[in-house]
Amino acid sequence: MREIVECVPNFSTSDPKIVESILKQIKKTKNAFLLDHTFDDYYNRLVVSFVGNKESVIEAALSAAFKAVELIDMRKHKGQHPRIGAVDVVPFMPIKSVTMGGCIELARRFGQTLAEKCGVPVYLYGEAATKAERRDLDWIRKGEYEKLAEMIVKPERKPDFGPAKSHPTAGVTVTGARKIMAGFNVNLGTADLKVAKKIAKALHAEKGGFSNVKAMAAFIPEKNITQIGMSVTDFEKTPLYRVFELLKVEAARYNVPIISSEFCGMAPLKALIDIAACYLKIDKLTEERVLEMAVQNAIEKGEGKSNS
Amino acid sequence: MREIVECVPNFSTSDPKIVESILKQIKKTKNAFLLDHTFDDYYNRLVVSFVGNKESVIEAALSAAFKAVELIDMRKHKGQHPRIGAVDVVPFMPIKSVTMGGCIELARRFGQTLAEKCGVPVYLYGEAATKAERRDLDWIRKGEYEKLAEMIVKPERKPDFGPAKSHPTAGVTVTGARKIMAGFNVNLGTADLKVAKKIAKALHAEKGGFSNVKAMAAFIPEKNITQIGMSVTDFEKTPLYRVFELLKVEAARYNVPIISSEFCGMAPLKALIDIAACYLKIDKLTEERVLEMAVQNAIEKGEGKSNS
Repeated sequence: MREIVECVPNFSTSDPKIVESILKQIKKTKNAFLLDHTFDDYYNRLVVSFVGNKESVIEAALSAAFKAVELIDMRKHKGQHPRIGAVDVVPFMPIKSVTMGGCIELARRFGQTLAEKCGVPVYLYGEAATKAERRDLDWIRKGEYEKLAEMIVKPERKPDFGPAKSHPTAGVTVTGARKIMAGFNVNLGTADLKVAKKIAKALHAEKGGFSNVKAMAAFIPEKNITQIGMSVTDFEKTPLYRVFELLKVEAARYNVPIISSEFCGMAPLKALIDIAACYLKIDKLTEERVLEMAVQNAIEKGEGKSNS
Repeated sequence: MREIVECVPNFSTSDPKIVESILKQIKKTKNAFLLDHTFDDYYNRLVVSFVGNKESVIEAALSAAFKAVELIDMRKHKGQHPRIGAVDVVPFMPIKSVTMGGCIELARRFGQTLAEKCGVPVYLYGEAATKAERRDLDWIRKGEYEKLAEMIVKPERKPDFGPAKSHPTAGVTVTGARKIMAGFNVNLGTADLKVAKKIAKALHAEKGGFSNVKAMAAFIPEKNITQIGMSVTDFEKTPLYRVFELLKVEAARYNVPIISSEFCGMAPLKALIDIAACYLKIDKLTEERVLEMAVQNAIEKGEGKSNS
């Protein structure tokens, strides 16, 4: 397969039966390949990652979204993660032989079709945004599902597709195009959400933190700890080691130990390279210098040759 | 391509013209793909890395070896890295859909052919060794090229292929099979080779260091610094961060700053993952969780499905 797009839809559910129904739609789509999915009660959110060519990715994304609109009732939804709809956010990302323009086109087709078939209002964000402020997912999601009725009628908040009226059970959907980002969560050895929020604030772009970082604090009841959940939108400009080192400083200030970290979704290779290169002072380490990537590149080059 | 073998032959030369002639033999072999090559004056050594299926890899390795035997004269060779022949060591490593047994077979065929066609005595090492002590490259290379005449006639040192008599210009060759390893060099901010040797000694397996590490010290004249050159044969059991942290402790003891590090040859993904996971305390990070690998795996699985 030459062209590869990644899609990481976020759905407002952690009901195992609904999760299974949504995943089934992606699995059954030809040339769409599920990479990963995670869901938990405290976020009450399902994050799915899959890849494919443009046609198979949009087909799988729409099938999954239709199913989610059918099965999720936002009127009953509670969770610590900000959300505005059943199909909360659906980003398309170029991975290989696809441009950002191609992904913007996918987002527009996805949004238009979802609005037409299900009557769900859709906003475009990221690189697909039609206005500067709509680039920012947080701006669109302001007030969340609960305040949708009053927000959606404001002229500056007119949806890009569909009616200016929230879908009764599915709310609204945000879709768009962006570069791949790193989802990175750090678990703190404290149950004190106030302290965790202070640490998250120190890292968050809009609060004076790193310009490519969004950070939020959540309480994880089953472990009685807190977690800093981060999206690092440009992990090449703001590498994870730098974010982690500052988080260490802030946590130490409150005498909070860092228990562990985890990628939310897939770990981009470049993010790992930058971490290793920093701590071991490694020069000239690029993706092409990683054995597995070099082998893959060499073989593809060879296949290209023998085909031509 | 389903089966993949990596071969990393080491040749005793840093003459750009000879390097070019050797590389040409690999480049012209169908289905063999050059990944990397490095050479420098202080080691006076060329390290090449290439991949292919079994047949193309042995063909390329033999062509390159014939050319090296033809062009390199060991009687004039000087260098800081231990070496015993023009084609010093030729390991074959399983990467994908090839067993260690398959690589042992390749090493035997390579050794037998090189001995027959060029009259170069050949020893088998690593997993291909015919006696326990021959598993260790250092045991075979003891006395290096200069003492070959007296060493090779000892009964316990009878070559596995070819005559018990050193080739006049090419010495002997060591070939074998092994797992991929990490070559890792650390540059020290001191020109004092005695200090660098003490640090190398602290890390080296046989001197009481880490059981999977071979470490040597070299002086790098053009930079007026020293370098610890390491082979970490099992970087899963002895991860690089652990080696680096001990090196830091030993260097600090002598007030020597660590300037930089570099992989010698390709960087195995698992080695990078272990470094990132240690410093950022990342749980559950495996090769399958790296985006680029997951995409590749998903596509291969999909292609397998559609073919069957």
